Amino acid sequence: MRAETGAPQGPLALICGGGSLPLAVADSVAARGREVVLFPLHGAAKPADFAARPSRWLHVGEFGKFVRLARAAGCRDVVLIGSLARPALWQIRPDWRTLRLMPRIIAAFRGGDDHLLSGIARLMEEHGFRLVGAHEVAPQILTPASTLGRVAPLPRDRDDIALGLDFLRASAAFDVGQAVVVAERRVLAVEAAEGTDEMLARVAHMRASGRVRVPAGCGVMVKAPKQGQDRRFDLPAIGPQTVEGAARAGLAGIALAAGETLLAEPARLVAVADRAGIFVVGVAAGPLS
Amino acid sequence: MRAETGAPQGPLALICGGGSLPLAVADSVAARGREVVLFPLHGAAKPADFAARPSRWLHVGEFGKFVRLARAAGCRDVVLIGSLARPALWQIRPDWRTLRLMPRIIAAFRGGDDHLLSGIARLMEEHGFRLVGAHEVAPQILTPASTLGRVAPLPRDRDDIALGLDFLRASAAFDVGQAVVVAERRVLAVEAAEGTDEMLARVAHMRASGRVRVPAGCGVMVKAPKQGQDRRFDLPAIGPQTVEGAARAGLAGIALAAGETLLAEPARLVAVADRAGIFVVGVAAGPLS
Repeated sequence: MRAETGAPQGPLALICGGGSLPLAVADSVAARGREVVLFPLHGAAKPADFAARPSRWLHVGEFGKFVRLARAAGCRDVVLIGSLARPALWQIRPDWRTLRLMPRIIAAFRGGDDHLLSGIARLMEEHGFRLVGAHEVAPQILTPASTLGRVAPLPRDRDDIALGLDFLRASAAFDVGQAVVVAERRVLAVEAAEGTDEMLARVAHMRASGRVRVPAGCGVMVKAPKQGQDRRFDLPAIGPQTVEGAARAGLAGIALAAGETLLAEPARLVAVADRAGIFVVGVAAGPLS
Repeated sequence: MRAETGAPQGPLALICGGGSLPLAVADSVAARGREVVLFPLHGAAKPADFAARPSRWLHVGEFGKFVRLARAAGCRDVVLIGSLARPALWQIRPDWRTLRLMPRIIAAFRGGDDHLLSGIARLMEEHGFRLVGAHEVAPQILTPASTLGRVAPLPRDRDDIALGLDFLRASAAFDVGQAVVVAERRVLAVEAAEGTDEMLARVAHMRASGRVRVPAGCGVMVKAPKQGQDRRFDLPAIGPQTVEGAARAGLAGIALAAGETLLAEPARLVAVADRAGIFVVGVAAGPLS
């Protein structure tokens, strides 16, 4: 927030994975008058999304190319944003700089996502860049501590939200997923490597098949960051398609850790939620991390 | 174990849900010389499985009918065994005795499975039955603390098993599922309402789609009872199809809490594991519950 006043910051390097969040951040940073240099990632970002914008495409592993192009563009601050399926080592196209760093990258690959991402963050900083959180350059995408649309959670939804937060708190140390679906005080689904959309599809399927018997319009998806998650990237995010998935899963709504989760396209997201009649609420997650 | 010596125990009432475990228990109890009275449940047990055996079919909710038939057959001990999808309230066909108990059954329906099952257990005991664990009448289906087949876990598998047990311990208080898949020290999938087979299918799918990139033959499914789970029923169980699912998911093997999990058809299960080249091991789960 301080960032918008004071010293000149120069252009912002935005390394873009998949989903709608990267361009939402790009537009919101640009709207604040800061130049944005786009670095979409092959295999993650959709070419069509970037066709109309000057972009410097990177393969995963082209760290040397990034360093060169970002320096040439005068960028010091870097934001990593958007989804990225964990690549296989053989999919990485290392350039010379990456090759020299390979032993450390391989070490970072062992263990969960956090391990990998914090390794990347350290490499960035050692090369003179400053890794910045998307919410620092585009604070309006942070979830506020309030009900976002026309629909508000009922007391029974608040019970489910509380149980969901308890569960995420208990399992937060494990570098697992960041979301859970609770209905009638019962945990129906836990997100791990499959991702949020897939978990919501599972809940829809379990309801349709009769495996889970919960009245329609009952149940909440709760999402919060993992323990020790580096807030400079990979804050959990939802977008309009998440709201659509929650509606298809027959849920009453979505609860997000306020100030610790991101909203891609907040206006459209709220419009989708209002139309589906489900709530989206930011809640204080407590000492989750 | 005491059960096989000493006082006459009379016939055993076996209320049978789905899967191969009920008949495995029935055969193993009968082999020990005790009479078994089968009560398969409509909608859960497969009619073909019981066609050749004298059976007293029950609808979920026919508690009065069960009480009458079990008393007439001279049963005092009751075992509940096999899978049962949580029925909707409207699917229950209450008889008169059940109707009178309905307020308490509805109360038991709120909350997780444990809540529901312990409510049923209390009702049984109030009607003069003794609820007994399947492992008490058929101890040979309990998982021993050893490697079961020809394949043994490697040290890296032991690491994944330890992490899986840690996760189950941390989340055990939540009445969630009882299994987790860990590979390369990363939690890939957590079972909640979808069940073990579905979770294994998810892992297979995530590997096939490239969402999860872990070398084939790497990863372990770990299964243990929930905290406070009533051991008299609903101990987690695996059967040959679980081993097949683990093989399709490309796992190295399956680890089970020794003495707290059940093996349906142990001999066939081990044969399937040996053929697939994966391990099945019983491990001390520590203070999980």
